[in-house]
Amino acid sequence: MIQNDTFLRALLRQPTPYTPLWIMRQAGRYLPEYNATRARAGSFLDLCKNPDLATEVTLQPLARYPLDAAILFSDILTIPDAMGLGLYFAEGEGPKLERPLRDEWEIRNLSAPDPTQHLRYVLDAVAQIRRALGGSVPLIGFSGSPFTLACYMVEGGGSEDFHHIKGMLYRRPDLLHQILETTTEAVILYLNAQIAAGAQAVMVFDTWGGTLTPAAYQEFSLAYLSRIAADLTRHAEGRRVPSIVFTKGGGLWLETIADAGFDAVGLDWTIDIAQARRRVGDRVALQGNMDPSALFGTPEGIRREVSRVLEGFGPGAGHVFNLGHGISRFTDPENVAIMVEAVHSFSCDSR
Amino acid sequence: MIQNDTFLRALLRQPTPYTPLWIMRQAGRYLPEYNATRARAGSFLDLCKNPDLATEVTLQPLARYPLDAAILFSDILTIPDAMGLGLYFAEGEGPKLERPLRDEWEIRNLSAPDPTQHLRYVLDAVAQIRRALGGSVPLIGFSGSPFTLACYMVEGGGSEDFHHIKGMLYRRPDLLHQILETTTEAVILYLNAQIAAGAQAVMVFDTWGGTLTPAAYQEFSLAYLSRIAADLTRHAEGRRVPSIVFTKGGGLWLETIADAGFDAVGLDWTIDIAQARRRVGDRVALQGNMDPSALFGTPEGIRREVSRVLEGFGPGAGHVFNLGHGISRFTDPENVAIMVEAVHSFSCDSR
Repeated sequence: MIQNDTFLRALLRQPTPYTPLWIMRQAGRYLPEYNATRARAGSFLDLCKNPDLATEVTLQPLARYPLDAAILFSDILTIPDAMGLGLYFAEGEGPKLERPLRDEWEIRNLSAPDPTQHLRYVLDAVAQIRRALGGSVPLIGFSGSPFTLACYMVEGGGSEDFHHIKGMLYRRPDLLHQILETTTEAVILYLNAQIAAGAQAVMVFDTWGGTLTPAAYQEFSLAYLSRIAADLTRHAEGRRVPSIVFTKGGGLWLETIADAGFDAVGLDWTIDIAQARRRVGDRVALQGNMDPSALFGTPEGIRREVSRVLEGFGPGAGHVFNLGHGISRFTDPENVAIMVEAVHSFSCDSR
Repeated sequence: MIQNDTFLRALLRQPTPYTPLWIMRQAGRYLPEYNATRARAGSFLDLCKNPDLATEVTLQPLARYPLDAAILFSDILTIPDAMGLGLYFAEGEGPKLERPLRDEWEIRNLSAPDPTQHLRYVLDAVAQIRRALGGSVPLIGFSGSPFTLACYMVEGGGSEDFHHIKGMLYRRPDLLHQILETTTEAVILYLNAQIAAGAQAVMVFDTWGGTLTPAAYQEFSLAYLSRIAADLTRHAEGRRVPSIVFTKGGGLWLETIADAGFDAVGLDWTIDIAQARRRVGDRVALQGNMDPSALFGTPEGIRREVSRVLEGFGPGAGHVFNLGHGISRFTDPENVAIMVEAVHSFSCDSR
């Protein structure tokens, strides 16, 4: 049914003829064709909310490079937006929410949106991308983690020090747990709706979990991630739907992350992948973890970094190559071609 | 000679009657008296460059709290400024350099400033603070790490992705090594001049080393930190001058950091201090590592977090209590008093 299922097989630690790869933020500003579509769309949010255009940009990197998976083009803040917090993008400032959550009554009134009602545009995009892919490679659905969504919901946008949410965590942990409960329910509904609409794997991005202490990470991020893993739809279209969790900056807590119930764990570039594999053993597949900045290097340097990651993981199944973070907008698209070719050829040669 | 030498003794893993503490950025914007002096000074830079005012703000937190060490009030970018790169502070944007290092000829022409010439104001502040302290508690001198200074020197300020320096690292590692060589020489001269002027311990802040891959961290940050450790003045005024290294986000590489030759290793709040102690054994003392955000909590919550850190380190010598990062400007000074009292009383009770 899927012409190239190497990505799905690697996530389940089944043998593949080479190491599959995709790139976090592969449909992004480093691609001139993406910038052209975005300019046509008007705003970033218009692009996310228009299934035709979301499909168009999702497919753009696949037209350039032989990537082994597509990822839904969307934003992690669709859930807070559907909760009524008012997502907008201030020029050059990243995502913002018009009505950050600070008051107890607002938090108590928060409810998980029904994705078939309030996130219809995402599900339409998933279905449309699946049709456009025509069974070539699998489609990844995704969501932000409850803690990461809560960061934006409480801060009202990105933050350097997250002092509003951290203040809540230490002063009113009950309120933060209330937000996380509701958001966890929303994430489960959202990911399962994406799977029902056609997503063949799902990933949860825990972008800000790494800013917590070890104890707070367990209590305010990982506990909710585990609940998501437990409630995800496991099979669809007669196939297993693998799941990936990625806590940026979570390298110190890898063992507990590997026990959360996901099939694979994403790694950022600060951890040695050989060490990561020793620490998680056969529990999960690993995804990552080349430094995105290595793509600023020379062709020879890029190939060297690709080798370092592939050799670090070593022989055997269970590796999906990726960057350790989203690709930088300053990346030369030619350098991405060099990386993709190196991942496929080096890993094929070593089997 | 020093009335309270608990801080120096703990850094050398000698017994103390209680766990000593100081607070990173203890003379900072959370203190109204600091803000008053700063307003009087004009700019942040005027404050740094005026030894009378630098002395005044250095002493302010000690007048409020029974801290066990003073730290020189200064900025980590004094070295790039003395190198002629033109330090300034854009309102609300943090430090900037007028002339970032991008061209090869500028890099080749860079030289280590003579601190007795170009950083006289820092040495004058050290001497004046020592006189003002009157032997009550020791004075810590400090510098940014070569890699962290290079980040600012190449980027021209703070950065979200450090793409200029990372680009140089991957494209022209020879140029980055050239910058790091010169900067290492400058840091050694600077710290030894601070020791000669009266600093009784020194700390190197590697704020950005944690943004590197494990291999790049070894090559571009830790290798230079080790050289600094090897060349520091070890004794002054008949006493050992202990040294501390702090790589924010360096928890995964703790064993190699502990082998770099410093007496103590600073920890951020993302690592469990019990695990850290097991991993470094008796090689070094540890400094840290309460989450600065815990100071947003209730009195009871603050005491619980203090206990967690003290109990995590456990019995025996070699712990200097601190936050895992600089104190937030949004901290209530009353909460700092609660923390200081808790550290002293809890650790005293457990001996």
